[in-house]
Amino acid sequence: MKPLFTAQVLTLFPEMFPGVLGASLAGRGLAAEKWALKTLDIRDFSSDKHRSVDDTPAGGGPGMVMRADILGKAFAAAAEDADPKWPVVYMSPRGRTFDQAEAKRWQQAGGVTILCGRFEGVDERVLEACGVEEISVGDMVLSGGEPAAMVMLDAVVRMLPGIMGAEATLNEESFESGLLEYPHYTRPQTWEGMEIPAVLTSGHHGKVAKWRQERAEEITRIRRPDMWSSYVRDKKAKD
Amino acid sequence: MKPLFTAQVLTLFPEMFPGVLGASLAGRGLAAEKWALKTLDIRDFSSDKHRSVDDTPAGGGPGMVMRADILGKAFAAAAEDADPKWPVVYMSPRGRTFDQAEAKRWQQAGGVTILCGRFEGVDERVLEACGVEEISVGDMVLSGGEPAAMVMLDAVVRMLPGIMGAEATLNEESFESGLLEYPHYTRPQTWEGMEIPAVLTSGHHGKVAKWRQERAEEITRIRRPDMWSSYVRDKKAKD
Repeated sequence: MKPLFTAQVLTLFPEMFPGVLGASLAGRGLAAEKWALKTLDIRDFSSDKHRSVDDTPAGGGPGMVMRADILGKAFAAAAEDADPKWPVVYMSPRGRTFDQAEAKRWQQAGGVTILCGRFEGVDERVLEACGVEEISVGDMVLSGGEPAAMVMLDAVVRMLPGIMGAEATLNEESFESGLLEYPHYTRPQTWEGMEIPAVLTSGHHGKVAKWRQERAEEITRIRRPDMWSSYVRDKKAKD
Repeated sequence: MKPLFTAQVLTLFPEMFPGVLGASLAGRGLAAEKWALKTLDIRDFSSDKHRSVDDTPAGGGPGMVMRADILGKAFAAAAEDADPKWPVVYMSPRGRTFDQAEAKRWQQAGGVTILCGRFEGVDERVLEACGVEEISVGDMVLSGGEPAAMVMLDAVVRMLPGIMGAEATLNEESFESGLLEYPHYTRPQTWEGMEIPAVLTSGHHGKVAKWRQERAEEITRIRRPDMWSSYVRDKKAKD
């Protein structure tokens, strides 16, 4: 059976993979071939005996820049095994911020090709020539793109059919409803003098649902005014 | 010598660590004891023979919730080895979004205690009782907190003295200047008919600096209007 999703990762550290994706839900899915992970070692596309892949930045300055000619060959090799529908992305703090909608887009495309950089950056020309989209995991600087790629692949793989134990939980979670999650409680009933809110153990399903909706709205309003504005706008549009 | 930074990670999957943090810059720093990584297996704090840590949500619904009593014991054990200055955080999509400023805060505190959840969530009472801050890697749902923790720790560890090969590169990067990075180029001069912009090979340092500043401003204005607004405001305040 063809895997439901394939990730191709261009990296200088193929030994970092599958890493965290080799355990738990993602790892079981990988072992069951529900998804596939292929790494391409960028150094394999170097033509010198030192397997060098970078050079000093044109115009001077610190750090090293990955060469367009070498990355161009790596992207060409990746393309041979890829579906043209798969996004081709570069992990970069300059990129569009990854989110649940982006994860869905990758999942629906059935695969993705990811370039993980190290050093100062990559030659801009290869991004243009190969139609590479820049994607960021957030407003921080990492030592390389690999940890960011793992977060993004986890978000994608988790959504594949048969990966989650209880698929029902998928729908109730954050960013599906447009609200942050309501607070959770479980036994023991009393812990360190703190009780589970009485409504949750009342057995009254309507009241539980109302309480959870109100808490989710409250938390979203306080913590994420941006999400709250979108939620209110979308709700008005539906009414 | 005392490590410059210590991460304590409470997880159901201690075998996921150090993972991606065991290679390259972070891995060399870990091997050299410039930073330390300690995992606590949450199941070690369970008191039943099945080592169970979760229970069904009060009020019903899908998924499972990690128990306050078990997590309370895990946090207490972590606190014994921690400096009270270290932030105690829970990887949660409901949390404040992690960014470079948060990375700096952790680094300056000298350590962090991170709870990585799986399942539906954790009992809210333990977050309140243990003063746990919720931190999010971004607007997406993961199968667990572990990949997010690795991204955050990479951002922190990278800033420790002696971790980066060329520390000079630290300062020029995104989110330090308030602008996204200008484009990079390196040899070959011509690739697939595309040239390195002439100004970068002119040898005129002033013109190179001006071109880079203009490109950084242009990219920020187009891609990140939010960052651009802050940059313009901060610049006006300085003038």
